[in-house]
Amino acid sequence: MSELNTDSDRRPDDQDTGAATYGLSDEIVQEIQNAVEQDEPDFIHAALEDWHSADIADLIEQLKPKLRAPFFQIMEGRIDPDVYSDLDENVRDELVEGMEPAEIAAFVSALELDDAVSVLEDLETEDQQEVLNEIPADERAALEEGLSFGEDTAGRLMQRNLIAVPEYWNIGQTIDYLRDTVDLPEEFYEIFVVDPRHHPIGTVPLNRAMRNKRDTNVRDIMDAEQRLIPVDMDQEEVAYQFQQYRLASAAVVNADGALIGVITVDDIVDVISEEAEEDILRLGGVSEDDLFGSILSTSRARFPWLFVNLLTAIAASIAISFFDATLEAIIALAVLMPIVASMGGNAGTQTLTVVVRAIATKELTSANMIRILSKETIVALVNGAIFAILIGGIAWAWFGEIRIGIIISIAMVINILVAGISGMLVPVMLEKMKVDPAIASSVFVTTVTDIVGFVAFLGLATMVLL
Amino acid sequence: MSELNTDSDRRPDDQDTGAATYGLSDEIVQEIQNAVEQDEPDFIHAALEDWHSADIADLIEQLKPKLRAPFFQIMEGRIDPDVYSDLDENVRDELVEGMEPAEIAAFVSALELDDAVSVLEDLETEDQQEVLNEIPADERAALEEGLSFGEDTAGRLMQRNLIAVPEYWNIGQTIDYLRDTVDLPEEFYEIFVVDPRHHPIGTVPLNRAMRNKRDTNVRDIMDAEQRLIPVDMDQEEVAYQFQQYRLASAAVVNADGALIGVITVDDIVDVISEEAEEDILRLGGVSEDDLFGSILSTSRARFPWLFVNLLTAIAASIAISFFDATLEAIIALAVLMPIVASMGGNAGTQTLTVVVRAIATKELTSANMIRILSKETIVALVNGAIFAILIGGIAWAWFGEIRIGIIISIAMVINILVAGISGMLVPVMLEKMKVDPAIASSVFVTTVTDIVGFVAFLGLATMVLL
Repeated sequence: MSELNTDSDRRPDDQDTGAATYGLSDEIVQEIQNAVEQDEPDFIHAALEDWHSADIADLIEQLKPKLRAPFFQIMEGRIDPDVYSDLDENVRDELVEGMEPAEIAAFVSALELDDAVSVLEDLETEDQQEVLNEIPADERAALEEGLSFGEDTAGRLMQRNLIAVPEYWNIGQTIDYLRDTVDLPEEFYEIFVVDPRHHPIGTVPLNRAMRNKRDTNVRDIMDAEQRLIPVDMDQEEVAYQFQQYRLASAAVVNADGALIGVITVDDIVDVISEEAEEDILRLGGVSEDDLFGSILSTSRARFPWLFVNLLTAIAASIAISFFDATLEAIIALAVLMPIVASMGGNAGTQTLTVVVRAIATKELTSANMIRILSKETIVALVNGAIFAILIGGIAWAWFGEIRIGIIISIAMVINILVAGISGMLVPVMLEKMKVDPAIASSVFVTTVTDIVGFVAFLGLATMVLL
Repeated sequence: MSELNTDSDRRPDDQDTGAATYGLSDEIVQEIQNAVEQDEPDFIHAALEDWHSADIADLIEQLKPKLRAPFFQIMEGRIDPDVYSDLDENVRDELVEGMEPAEIAAFVSALELDDAVSVLEDLETEDQQEVLNEIPADERAALEEGLSFGEDTAGRLMQRNLIAVPEYWNIGQTIDYLRDTVDLPEEFYEIFVVDPRHHPIGTVPLNRAMRNKRDTNVRDIMDAEQRLIPVDMDQEEVAYQFQQYRLASAAVVNADGALIGVITVDDIVDVISEEAEEDILRLGGVSEDDLFGSILSTSRARFPWLFVNLLTAIAASIAISFFDATLEAIIALAVLMPIVASMGGNAGTQTLTVVVRAIATKELTSANMIRILSKETIVALVNGAIFAILIGGIAWAWFGEIRIGIIISIAMVINILVAGISGMLVPVMLEKMKVDPAIASSVFVTTVTDIVGFVAFLGLATMVLL
């Protein structure tokens, strides 16, 4: 496949598409791209024939933006609606902008409810309404109800389609019901047992149902203990429940305790990725995954964090400016001062990273806070002392002045200690103030370590050397 | 429950334990802690009666370390072996150190294979062997085989216990087989169909098996297409497969293509969390989650990153020292120079965070690299220009010298541009060199932005102002 043949009836070699097992290879993306440019529909149809929707979505993301519309034209009638829900949000927005409401409605109706809702929720309110108007009334009602649940709540994650049977049924009745019902969920792992008010009272895993005789009563083999998910529970908390209790699926109940949906573990996989991704990006000072965002939206999204950093950098400069006489007298201080600030910033980032994760995974609580804080303090003292000796010796050797070595050593211990304590306390306080510690900890901690680093070093120097 | 009653037959109020729905409350941890200190076994037994093993593990992590041994004494015979596999690795190591091999063997044998292997793999080789010697031969063989697969591979994640039926069976035979077999997996969602060489040729989801009549042949209702996981596939790649193709479970095959195990999506949930956690910690300069690590191991683990940072900070200082005459002449430069370096560091971190994630999620490939690099360059120029104007104006106003404003503006554009480009190229090159971009990108990028920031600013000043 490395040499392209321009004959339009060439067929891609199955061995080479690669997508089947290990994601897209660069070669196949390049080949499809060339085929789109040269308008070779037969080659593209053959190449993508057995591809999974997720791989097609990845392929579209990889294509040059100007080739995406021609690609869709070539693939007309061959695009699995799931491709739209698998697409990166930025890329989908761009595609959907060029589509008529009826076209959007067509693929939205073909999606499973939770996927359909997650496509709709990204549209502007006006467009959303136009699309909904194109959808048959009964389906529309389900979508509107889905959208009525708060974003990032259990209600948005759940499937409405589930198997619930009354407690007096036996396995035989249940199996006959499954065989006779046409509109069953695509996938399900458990049968819910409900009381007359439709409150869930237990679950029967499918494998258990299969292992028991037809005359066994569901009540006798159900797990009575189950974790019910309130429909308004935040998705992060839902993910925590699934991880903590190793759930395969869980019943979602409304405020009255009635069973209204089910969440399965495969939906949670995406939530866990999303939430971890959010933490990673926020810790890096990025508000969202903007890889496929436009230049304007990316610049705008990164601006606020840089602006806050400008303010804190200016604050640090003001702190330095108080010591201009000292700097003027001993220029070596200007050369050395970034080292103290930089080490403090790094030590602080280490601590805050561990603490932000520990808060997210509920490992850090009021019960063990003092203990962990003491540990961080001692760790900071140990590493602070080691690096103080190292940098003290280096500074002494470099500038031939032992007092500069001693001053930088003391400033280093102070700043690494402050870094450890603020790296712990800043995220904890932000969490108490209901601010996501991932998003704001870093800027506060590095501001503290910058200012303390400069002031400790230059202040000590002013006292001792001038 | 807020007022503690010292009467030893008091019973905890179910409403208050909280663990059932939202993790541990600080109050209950405090109460159990007091009860351990005052040796009140009845209270503790009653309080923990219905707790899930994961909550007990969390409780143990929250307890003061010196109370953990007394807690185990009080709970003797009441600890579900799963508690050990749910425990944080650091805490488990500490507990296991005080145990006899026979005791460890007792709980290890009670765990599911994958959990047992993950407990054993954390032990020293010698202790591992001692524990294995205490385990009956047939179980030991399975554990030894589990340990023989590479760490973090599919082999370590899989369950050996699965349901495989020959292709000529019908649903009735399959159900009878399930009913007659005692040693079935605890949970399973699919039945594997195998050929005479035990190669998997398809899967039948349980719900489909239940919906079909007894005389239906499994071959006629199986999904022939399935994603096979080679036993030596890295767990990160396994997780990618599950996410990309929304798998509920997948067959694991050996080098000959024979079915040897199954991985289910609930095992993947932990892998995704672990891998994301690893990226978060590495980006923050921490090698592992050390919240519950000892002071010594935590200090030691954080040392290397700080040491590398010391070297790069010294490199930056050396760069500054070339301009000591300039600094001596115009002390305002010493005051302003950290701003340029700091803004570059932040802009670089933003880009590298997005790029590291995009590499991990396979969104960034050779096919779209040039496009994304161009975008990052333009974004850097846009934000660089805006911040150049801002800081230029501020510096001019502050020091009343327009040339300082112009110099800092130009240095700012240069450094933010370098930050954008290195934030993109450094992780990409590390990935090509098979180094995890999460662990090393940050130190390289900030070294570049520090040095370029100082040199551009002070160099321009030397040319223009002296």
